[in-house]
Amino acid sequence: MKTKQERTIYLEDTPRQDALERCLNLMELTDITEDVEVQNAVGRITAEPVYACASNPHFHASAMDGIAVRAKDTETAHESNPLRLKEEADFEYVDTGNPIPHGFDAVIMIEDVNEVTDGELEIIAPAVPWQRIRPIGEDITYGEMLLSQGHKIRPVDAGALLAASVKEVKVIRKPAVRIYPSGSELVSPHEPLKSGKLIEFNGTIFSEMVKEWGGEPELMPIVKDDPEAIRAALSEGVEAADIVIINAGSSAGSKDFTAGVIEEMGEVITHGIATRPGKPVVIGKVNGTIVIGIPGYPVSAYFVMEWFVEPLICRFLDVPVPEREKLTVHAGRRIVSSMGSEDFIRVNIGYVNGRFVANPLTRSASVTMSLVKADGIVTLPADQLGVEQGEKMTAVLTKPRTEIQSSVLFSGSHDLSVDILSSHLKKEDGLTRIIASHTGSMAGLMAIKRGEAHLTGLHLFDPATGTYNLPYIEKFLRNMKLVLLPFLQRQQGLMVPKGNPYSIQNISHIAEKEARYVNRQKGAGTRMLFDHLLKENGLKPENITGYNREMFTHLSVAAEVKMEARAVGMGIYSAAQAMDLDFIPVEEESYDLLMTQEFFESKQGRLLFHTLKSRQFKESVEQLGGYTVNDNLEARYIKI
Amino acid sequence: MKTKQERTIYLEDTPRQDALERCLNLMELTDITEDVEVQNAVGRITAEPVYACASNPHFHASAMDGIAVRAKDTETAHESNPLRLKEEADFEYVDTGNPIPHGFDAVIMIEDVNEVTDGELEIIAPAVPWQRIRPIGEDITYGEMLLSQGHKIRPVDAGALLAASVKEVKVIRKPAVRIYPSGSELVSPHEPLKSGKLIEFNGTIFSEMVKEWGGEPELMPIVKDDPEAIRAALSEGVEAADIVIINAGSSAGSKDFTAGVIEEMGEVITHGIATRPGKPVVIGKVNGTIVIGIPGYPVSAYFVMEWFVEPLICRFLDVPVPEREKLTVHAGRRIVSSMGSEDFIRVNIGYVNGRFVANPLTRSASVTMSLVKADGIVTLPADQLGVEQGEKMTAVLTKPRTEIQSSVLFSGSHDLSVDILSSHLKKEDGLTRIIASHTGSMAGLMAIKRGEAHLTGLHLFDPATGTYNLPYIEKFLRNMKLVLLPFLQRQQGLMVPKGNPYSIQNISHIAEKEARYVNRQKGAGTRMLFDHLLKENGLKPENITGYNREMFTHLSVAAEVKMEARAVGMGIYSAAQAMDLDFIPVEEESYDLLMTQEFFESKQGRLLFHTLKSRQFKESVEQLGGYTVNDNLEARYIKI
Repeated sequence: MKTKQERTIYLEDTPRQDALERCLNLMELTDITEDVEVQNAVGRITAEPVYACASNPHFHASAMDGIAVRAKDTETAHESNPLRLKEEADFEYVDTGNPIPHGFDAVIMIEDVNEVTDGELEIIAPAVPWQRIRPIGEDITYGEMLLSQGHKIRPVDAGALLAASVKEVKVIRKPAVRIYPSGSELVSPHEPLKSGKLIEFNGTIFSEMVKEWGGEPELMPIVKDDPEAIRAALSEGVEAADIVIINAGSSAGSKDFTAGVIEEMGEVITHGIATRPGKPVVIGKVNGTIVIGIPGYPVSAYFVMEWFVEPLICRFLDVPVPEREKLTVHAGRRIVSSMGSEDFIRVNIGYVNGRFVANPLTRSASVTMSLVKADGIVTLPADQLGVEQGEKMTAVLTKPRTEIQSSVLFSGSHDLSVDILSSHLKKEDGLTRIIASHTGSMAGLMAIKRGEAHLTGLHLFDPATGTYNLPYIEKFLRNMKLVLLPFLQRQQGLMVPKGNPYSIQNISHIAEKEARYVNRQKGAGTRMLFDHLLKENGLKPENITGYNREMFTHLSVAAEVKMEARAVGMGIYSAAQAMDLDFIPVEEESYDLLMTQEFFESKQGRLLFHTLKSRQFKESVEQLGGYTVNDNLEARYIKI
Repeated sequence: MKTKQERTIYLEDTPRQDALERCLNLMELTDITEDVEVQNAVGRITAEPVYACASNPHFHASAMDGIAVRAKDTETAHESNPLRLKEEADFEYVDTGNPIPHGFDAVIMIEDVNEVTDGELEIIAPAVPWQRIRPIGEDITYGEMLLSQGHKIRPVDAGALLAASVKEVKVIRKPAVRIYPSGSELVSPHEPLKSGKLIEFNGTIFSEMVKEWGGEPELMPIVKDDPEAIRAALSEGVEAADIVIINAGSSAGSKDFTAGVIEEMGEVITHGIATRPGKPVVIGKVNGTIVIGIPGYPVSAYFVMEWFVEPLICRFLDVPVPEREKLTVHAGRRIVSSMGSEDFIRVNIGYVNGRFVANPLTRSASVTMSLVKADGIVTLPADQLGVEQGEKMTAVLTKPRTEIQSSVLFSGSHDLSVDILSSHLKKEDGLTRIIASHTGSMAGLMAIKRGEAHLTGLHLFDPATGTYNLPYIEKFLRNMKLVLLPFLQRQQGLMVPKGNPYSIQNISHIAEKEARYVNRQKGAGTRMLFDHLLKENGLKPENITGYNREMFTHLSVAAEVKMEARAVGMGIYSAAQAMDLDFIPVEEESYDLLMTQEFFESKQGRLLFHTLKSRQFKESVEQLGGYTVNDNLEARYIKI
């Protein structure tokens, strides 16, 4: 282990565009074409113009089933004076696509002839020369340019090439991209998972991204965090590929060897860019091959791939970087950003009250799910400190706009039934689904008030009345037309590790037995319930170890509890069940859904209500355990 | 050969939407899922929600290189009162990703510690509990829903699944689509091409379309035009596939067996739809499998695939049919349409004078190249008779809008150098290319006048002055600021079959020797030159056999000439060369480019001028033969 004194490399703050320009300038384009069979050429880029090797049709062909005639001979045919024609001498039968027999120059449709005897016909109108004939080259003329250089071959293009007797086509070959995952803590997805080991999954993301961009990825076995191993991988990789990726070790820490090894074997042109996330990138060149050191955190890695590897592949293929769909959105809440770095913020986007509202997801670069859940990415330039709530921003979309537009934006208390509801909605209507922000009951109430969400889920206990939700709605949401759906009852309780090693039976035990409590965030209904119960039991937060640490979902509390024998948390039965924990019931509470009347009466609102009332949905939720989904769900209109 | 009397089937005029609805209703969705490895799942559609099989991280992991400590023990650390920590007892070294050793609950970055002696450190600030730790489940919590049902798996989703220890995922399988090309005149693209045989290329287009839409195509060998053969193919196909395609024999002609065989083996629900092209389609069902008879002409076939097979595949996969980009365009010229049928018109689109102008390509269903060249498709409903010039229409784009927007719209005389110019422009700037309509010199002049094209190419001989082009421009384009580029000289001459079997040496010989002349369209410079030469030689059109048949390009004239010993045509040297014809020079003519000053001074205009002046372009054109590209090309500003 090296200590602080041995760390001498510091990261630069190169602007991303400068780094990209330098990176693209490194690319050497030699030997970049290959011949492929037309049948395998769809999606490839032509390396030169493609010319027809034959005409299509390559002979004068009949365009109809009928008879071939000499137009000149038919001039006298008339309704009042039918013209008789003899087979072979005056006409020949032809089918669609047949060559016009020599000497004939027109075709009469079979519908327009009358058979008189075998081998003899009558016609009642003259033929115009070349009628019903597809002349040679009607579709494609020999020597004609079919496709220009730099054209991405589509299915119909491949058909045209075959029609023109072109069997092979010169295309730009797919740039070879070798991917070396590196890190001693990593194991491949196929190995069993042990403590202290992490699954290597970035490599799969990279491979699939490279494929989508038109490159040829090769995902290599994991390389140890060791300069010698990285050196060996690199010297082999730069011979085999056009671009080599090392993931990770790209920062300036004690085990970050990537930059050092590239520098030693070739040159480093950039180490560190002014972005968040994505800063610790290394760009260099070894033996004529571009080498990119990509940070290990999946979100950083994803962005660095898009910023550098996609443009490199496009440059190689000589195509423009595809433009992503953009959308003007309004910040659903304030977003802060630090000066000096471009900030890339993953957002959920919902269409609420006639405008697109974007809410930031977690900023942590280690949360892959923030990319999975994101609807778009907002970039805040280096000189911007942030955006205020409601301010306009441009989001680059990562999901189709149609899907975003028909999404139901949920902000409120987390419940597993909301995920199930989303899945059932999507089954009903392919585009509709719920985008859920787990903000807690109080924040959800505020989101409805400010028009930032369509839907919230609440379980707010009011000690004064002993009831749920309605007192809070009446207090905070004045002058609004709302609809409350009293949708389910659920078991809240204490979750403890299997076997309940510290024998926790009630709230007082948590303090008495010095258990470590795993708390929820401020404003969460579960936290408010716990605070109420503390007060009832004459306890204060100071009496509870761990009170200040906050988790945002039932499942993450449960996951924490599972890790430590003396841990305890409060949550719903289904979360305890999912994590195989013991559960001590404390309270049956009402979890209600709240929305504006306007949303309730919209297409999505009606679909939502319909789905909530369905037997399939009720069954799916009750299967989780600890739930009673209310039969005969009725909408309660509230006007305060 | 059956005659008219035996034809009893007539095509229906079912509205396309009705036919589609009936077709979709035929689909039976049973046994439609399969399990695939996550690494192979990108692009596939989830058949059910996917839940995490493990948390990520699945242990509390250090987020930094540093030391793990107990936060409680560090409370006294201060700049003025550094706290000394002993390895093992008070701290342990951890790297990013390492598990937090048991009993520790915070990490201090290595940058913030001072090494005192080996195994002893000092810190000057306390640690907050859980700082620099990635708690279990930070990214993914065990049991969490990762993807909902009906989600198309992206690269990052595959990564998240692996991170959550999900190794296999249940997806909707790709619907199997069997494609049987049928027709006795067809040969596979790999067989040698003989007269009377046509290359079967629709099957390749279909296969690639099916792949793009998410199906699994299987292109079968060509089936003969014979009911027995079709019956055998069908009975095998319906067992093996979800959708069977028979191409063609779908009309109601004497060799059109598809509908009959389907009727005999199952049921036909539609035979004939009210569209142009695409009318003769057959939709039916045999043994629970949907069978579609698709017309043989490639343009009809392409549309029928999009209208029926794509929606069927999307229904199977339970995804919406992807929306294609649309654009409002103005008709560049009048388009006529017949009542009672939806009309699908392939158009070229150019951005001229601030609006998108669409010009129809050939309406012939047999011209594959009209699909290759099209920028979009305009649909005229069944009750619309057509559109007037300038009228607004909606085009569904078949090329990216960015490419259309930066295209140079050419209308005018055909010259091979224009294709080469387009290719060189595209090399200079990936998006810019020329969309050429071969309308002839006069029509090109009018297109510039009416603002329907950016660029025209002219070779209009003025007998009065003995000069080219300028007299016509002065006569027809008053009050315009124009730029003329006198760009090349080219050889016009008579093209005759190799060896010149009829010994044609001059214009008079065409009449004298009763050669068959292949003419160009009205308004083409070459036709105007020929008419001038006829007059000079005291000849009239009536003296010339074939005068009334019109071809639209030099190459198509040359292709015609190649077919017949007594044929002769007028055209440029390079066309004769391309078709291996003999060439009798007649005239060296000026082929000039003309554009508005505004276009000339635009970005594309400058790029065009730059490219025209380049050595590489001059060489590419002169390589064709018969051309002299003018050195020191200078723009001639014309203000009339």
